[in-house]
Amino acid sequence: MSYEPAPEHKFTFGLWTVGWQGGDPFGDATRPALDPVETVQKLSELGAHGVTFHDDDLIPFGSSDAEREGIVKRFRQALDATGMKVPMATTNLFKHPVFKDGAFTANDRDVRRYALRKTMRNIDLAAELGATTYVAWGGREGAESGGAKDVRVALDRLKEAFDVLGDYVVSQGYDLRFAIEPKPNEPRGDILLPTVGHALAFINELEHADRVGLNPEVGHEQMAGLNFPHGIAQALWHGKLFHIDLNGQSGIKYDQDFRFGAGDLRQAFWLVDLLESAGYEGPRHFDFKPPRTEDFDGVWASAAGCMRNYLILKEKAAAFRADPEVQEALRASRLDELARPTLNEGETAADLLADTAAFEEFDVEAAAGRGMAFERLDQLALEHLLGVRG
Amino acid sequence: MSYEPAPEHKFTFGLWTVGWQGGDPFGDATRPALDPVETVQKLSELGAHGVTFHDDDLIPFGSSDAEREGIVKRFRQALDATGMKVPMATTNLFKHPVFKDGAFTANDRDVRRYALRKTMRNIDLAAELGATTYVAWGGREGAESGGAKDVRVALDRLKEAFDVLGDYVVSQGYDLRFAIEPKPNEPRGDILLPTVGHALAFINELEHADRVGLNPEVGHEQMAGLNFPHGIAQALWHGKLFHIDLNGQSGIKYDQDFRFGAGDLRQAFWLVDLLESAGYEGPRHFDFKPPRTEDFDGVWASAAGCMRNYLILKEKAAAFRADPEVQEALRASRLDELARPTLNEGETAADLLADTAAFEEFDVEAAAGRGMAFERLDQLALEHLLGVRG
Amino acid sequence: MSYEPAPEHKFTFGLWTVGWQGGDPFGDATRPALDPVETVQKLSELGAHGVTFHDDDLIPFGSSDAEREGIVKRFRQALDATGMKVPMATTNLFKHPVFKDGAFTANDRDVRRYALRKTMRNIDLAAELGATTYVAWGGREGAESGGAKDVRVALDRLKEAFDVLGDYVVSQGYDLRFAIEPKPNEPRGDILLPTVGHALAFINELEHADRVGLNPEVGHEQMAGLNFPHGIAQALWHGKLFHIDLNGQSGIKYDQDFRFGAGDLRQAFWLVDLLESAGYEGPRHFDFKPPRTEDFDGVWASAAGCMRNYLILKEKAAAFRADPEVQEALRASRLDELARPTLNEGETAADLLADTAAFEEFDVEAAAGRGMAFERLDQLALEHLLGVRG
Amino acid sequence: MSYEPAPEHKFTFGLWTVGWQGGDPFGDATRPALDPVETVQKLSELGAHGVTFHDDDLIPFGSSDAEREGIVKRFRQALDATGMKVPMATTNLFKHPVFKDGAFTANDRDVRRYALRKTMRNIDLAAELGATTYVAWGGREGAESGGAKDVRVALDRLKEAFDVLGDYVVSQGYDLRFAIEPKPNEPRGDILLPTVGHALAFINELEHADRVGLNPEVGHEQMAGLNFPHGIAQALWHGKLFHIDLNGQSGIKYDQDFRFGAGDLRQAFWLVDLLESAGYEGPRHFDFKPPRTEDFDGVWASAAGCMRNYLILKEKAAAFRADPEVQEALRASRLDELARPTLNEGETAADLLADTAAFEEFDVEAAAGRGMAFERLDQLALEHLLGVRG
Repeated sequence: MSYEPAPEHKFTFGLWTVGWQGGDPFGDATRPALDPVETVQKLSELGAHGVTFHDDDLIPFGSSDAEREGIVKRFRQALDATGMKVPMATTNLFKHPVFKDGAFTANDRDVRRYALRKTMRNIDLAAELGATTYVAWGGREGAESGGAKDVRVALDRLKEAFDVLGDYVVSQGYDLRFAIEPKPNEPRGDILLPTVGHALAFINELEHADRVGLNPEVGHEQMAGLNFPHGIAQALWHGKLFHIDLNGQSGIKYDQDFRFGAGDLRQAFWLVDLLESAGYEGPRHFDFKPPRTEDFDGVWASAAGCMRNYLILKEKAAAFRADPEVQEALRASRLDELARPTLNEGETAADLLADTAAFEEFDVEAAAGRGMAFERLDQLALEHLLGVRG
Repeated sequence: MSYEPAPEHKFTFGLWTVGWQGGDPFGDATRPALDPVETVQKLSELGAHGVTFHDDDLIPFGSSDAEREGIVKRFRQALDATGMKVPMATTNLFKHPVFKDGAFTANDRDVRRYALRKTMRNIDLAAELGATTYVAWGGREGAESGGAKDVRVALDRLKEAFDVLGDYVVSQGYDLRFAIEPKPNEPRGDILLPTVGHALAFINELEHADRVGLNPEVGHEQMAGLNFPHGIAQALWHGKLFHIDLNGQSGIKYDQDFRFGAGDLRQAFWLVDLLESAGYEGPRHFDFKPPRTEDFDGVWASAAGCMRNYLILKEKAAAFRADPEVQEALRASRLDELARPTLNEGETAADLLADTAAFEEFDVEAAAGRGMAFERLDQLALEHLLGVRG
Repeated sequence: MSYEPAPEHKFTFGLWTVGWQGGDPFGDATRPALDPVETVQKLSELGAHGVTFHDDDLIPFGSSDAEREGIVKRFRQALDATGMKVPMATTNLFKHPVFKDGAFTANDRDVRRYALRKTMRNIDLAAELGATTYVAWGGREGAESGGAKDVRVALDRLKEAFDVLGDYVVSQGYDLRFAIEPKPNEPRGDILLPTVGHALAFINELEHADRVGLNPEVGHEQMAGLNFPHGIAQALWHGKLFHIDLNGQSGIKYDQDFRFGAGDLRQAFWLVDLLESAGYEGPRHFDFKPPRTEDFDGVWASAAGCMRNYLILKEKAAAFRADPEVQEALRASRLDELARPTLNEGETAADLLADTAAFEEFDVEAAAGRGMAFERLDQLALEHLLGVRG
Repeated sequence: MSYEPAPEHKFTFGLWTVGWQGGDPFGDATRPALDPVETVQKLSELGAHGVTFHDDDLIPFGSSDAEREGIVKRFRQALDATGMKVPMATTNLFKHPVFKDGAFTANDRDVRRYALRKTMRNIDLAAELGATTYVAWGGREGAESGGAKDVRVALDRLKEAFDVLGDYVVSQGYDLRFAIEPKPNEPRGDILLPTVGHALAFINELEHADRVGLNPEVGHEQMAGLNFPHGIAQALWHGKLFHIDLNGQSGIKYDQDFRFGAGDLRQAFWLVDLLESAGYEGPRHFDFKPPRTEDFDGVWASAAGCMRNYLILKEKAAAFRADPEVQEALRASRLDELARPTLNEGETAADLLADTAAFEEFDVEAAAGRGMAFERLDQLALEHLLGVRG
């Protein structure tokens, strides 16, 4: 197989990913800035479907309206020329010092109002460029110390923000949904809505809950030691996987943003298996940072690697599912039984209570003695991943 | 102040806590079994309000109906004699090998039916003993490998279980609510509903969602590196803090179950501050394990320490909140501004868009230059905790 | 390639690995005990080179001398019949409650003396059975609280123990070296000599330092978030990799002991690459636990998987190193330059100081602009691992 | 007690600590640069003993010799005017892009030579300013991917660097010792010498091993989940605690550099208890970052808090050790027995073997039944910390 990326694979990249200059907490930038137009052209050549952006990625903070107009026009020409799409956009509410204590939940009310306006402004541009998903990563919504933030009150403010933004999108008639991106920490000591679960729960309290879903990121959940495919499965179960950020992370530590495939390879396999088998139709969006050791050759090699690795894993997952020995092993592990409801059709709690086979006559020891055959199944999956089957 | 625990403080202990015999993955029990009646008496002497239990803690697995009846009668006598309450009960769905692949989400359907019946049986006893909360810790609902569990299907089964149990409780007219206890891992590689957030989200999908809330445990969230007071604040915000498990944990590692106050002391302070200021009225339930290095003197010292530490922290939190310098520091950090809605009363998205003060004329640099004064506030909190203020 | 294990691959297993009955902190055993003789036979059939044991694995704690003799005789017959070796043995100093506060560093002096004697006794048997490595895992040498152990004093006791045991082995003329196995925590809150590094440092202070090295375990270092191949490289650099425990672990959490290949697959690849290229000649010892979900079919599938995965990774590592494109990529990343000493032959600090090319005339910006080409190299390694090259 | 810092307490601060401008991976600086002279004056007023610096903290990278001379002169005047000392200096080998792949272990040989020269140059200045400790934090010595660094070869290069630098210091007759600062990760995926233990082991291989010790940092060990006081105890045991970096960290995550006292408060207590009781005489050096939410008032409040918290904990540790009830509790936990050698004076392995009381007649069950009384001891320590004793 060729593993050649093409637009139909829906691979997208943030302008800030290949455009990351390599500044980190201990070091200066190692690469010059990339022109967004060059990024569009280069990613198009590599087979991507589109790009995404924070407002300030495209239009430098503080640009005049005229500058803004010129930048957008030129960017749009690059999109038109290449056929690249902008399926998603988002707001930078974390880089400028004004957001040092957060944006929608900053203690300072005027900062919160400013953050809403900055977001509304880029929502307009997102809609204009055809984006249908608007991501909200609240990276500065949090605290380093216990007294600095009343979390219940902050959640009120966060809900207020999403309700206002929802009103705005509806009032403008935009075909745009919001996707919240959870993260446990960094750059704040603790961030609000730290995991997929917390964000899913929060959404239920919103006025426009149906218009708000998730944009989970591989590394963010893994920074809390959580199983990423499990989190995605729960997001899908709730119908809330609106978008996804693919990258790599090596365990619980600082946010690494490796290319997709680096980091936890086995979770990457199960993730692709899940996305493909669950019929997820959104973009496969890479939110990664080419290591600062790399020059631009390395940047593009890294971006190409993200897509290639997804296609490799997709092929392997399909082969795994199609393998008759795997199918037999899944039955031996009784995955088919898990799919059967626990109660019979129409059975009630009272009926179950009356079923002596379920309890009084149930042979607990015999049931306890049945092996689950998970090791054989897992070894089969591993061998598909390693490419040593058949 | 005396820090003397009394029943009005609502301190409760699981029978399995002081009764833990000290068996761990690498070692045998170091203490003999405790008679539940002795536990009731001893904890009553120490000032506790009540005890809680898994079915098998009180009635050994496999007891006959006659044995069961005798045990319950004797236990009830001890309760009556001491005035101790049983505000909560739960089911052991993890110890017997039959649950090795889970209970409500075991791949084996007959195990799932058995687990439901085992739970219903103890729900009857819980109601009989006056419990109003029924805890569900799904410690075995999970997997060690990616193919072993289809998480979306497993969540269907988990929902089915809570729906059936909810039906049962309603049909019996029990005054009983369920409290789900999340945990990220151990004893399974990954457990379903790994955090407070995931469980909150799950509850929204249940038939009896209003009857289901949370029983978060300090150490479980901290095993994922999450800020426990933040998680509790979110649970309170959703109106879902039905019960709480207090203990201590030293960071991301195996489940330690230290006495309350050991482990992360600063989070313990903020937790008590939150519970007391939020008006949480449920039991302060200790789910800890006296280290296996201890004999029974150590066991009771450890139990007494849990309660005493809560009372110490409660006094300190009250003094912190009452301190005029703290109140001034909170204002300097603009906590009062966080409490004000971001929009004016009646203000709409369109109004905000029209407010040039919010964006066009907003002095971003001036706002960015304002210090948040969090360090001073945090130092005041720390000094209250250390007892070196006034 | 066949990936058929054979004795020349030096695969060994602890009796306690396949023999683990599945008891964990929350659950009872799920499998019956295995007869060590059956283990020897079965592992021999699977292609293993030998077995290893704790004293109590073979001879139940408290056996009489006569029982002991009978057991050893029968075990030796099984070894002889199969040709299986015992290259390593160790002492169980953690299971019995007497070791609840440690063995060589227990606060109780009589426990320390007993622990030394228990060890000396099994050293005799180890030597008798031909073992040349004696592993020391001090799993109970640690503490849960800060006052419980004076670490400097405890290290004095630990040194004393190794000095006495070294004297003993020398005095008996045994051809036996010690291998310390570090672990950061579990079953103690913090364990002494928590990492490969701490143990390497400790060894330098011993009387018989040349006779003491390491037995690092994959999962133990990964429980501290450390890169296992890096740790092994440092152990090799010090000449101290006397033995190794291979298994799998999914990040920072409880000790999982998955089969080799499960857990962090990429580190497993680099580990095999390192062991094979560094000429490590000791046993490839699997210290894993077949998940308690498994029956004996699963146990043996899991054991077979450990060996098979090692052979698969060995083949892939060899292909990676032999690939001309990889060799070119290594040069592009200047691994060859890393191998050249930084100073010229005979160059002194003063010479370096006088070399203006090194500093005064060094073009820092030009050097900073060179890309390291690590992403391409890593992608090549990943593709070898995934089996999609050539 | 007053908790007023004074020079005799030997509190020192890096210029880069209070001078940190607040740039982080996701945000720009929030504070202007601080003039080192102002830092010296302000810290002197707060009661500090001295300051420390990286070459580039004092003399901007790329300064001319004349600029350099002027800066040093002015800095020295500020020191003289205030009586502030410079007990330690270090090199910035991580900020400039030229060090993106490391300094002493960069794959590029010319970068390694440049790094040595940059270090030698600042060693001269360190000696000139009276520093007796030269810290080496190899933050960029590491890798993000497995093929990018041959760790054994890199350790050869690292040894070479320390050998050359040792030669240089000896040849110049400087009264200067090196202190290696370990860190597990960030800014590299994995850093060489990741823990106190790895660095201690490495030192043993150096030519000038007696001149090289450690500068452990609280947060760095805690980023690996390790117990910091335990690590310091081992460093002291080896005679290698040459310097120390005090700060705060909340568990395994990105490097937080909170003020001392924030983060793990109980470890901070045991650390001060250890340093004070072990007679550590070096500087108490704070390597922290005032959160970027703070203005300069917050910066100085944070610096003052570091010193004040140390003094508070020092008082509490002294009170803990002086408390007769604590002393009795320590005996009840048999800390005195731990201090007694396990063997009698002159006793040999053979003698121990002959002592039937040690094994044959040892009452294992009775010994196993003794409680260790650690919970009571720990509760006493906690109550001293909380200030609720006496």
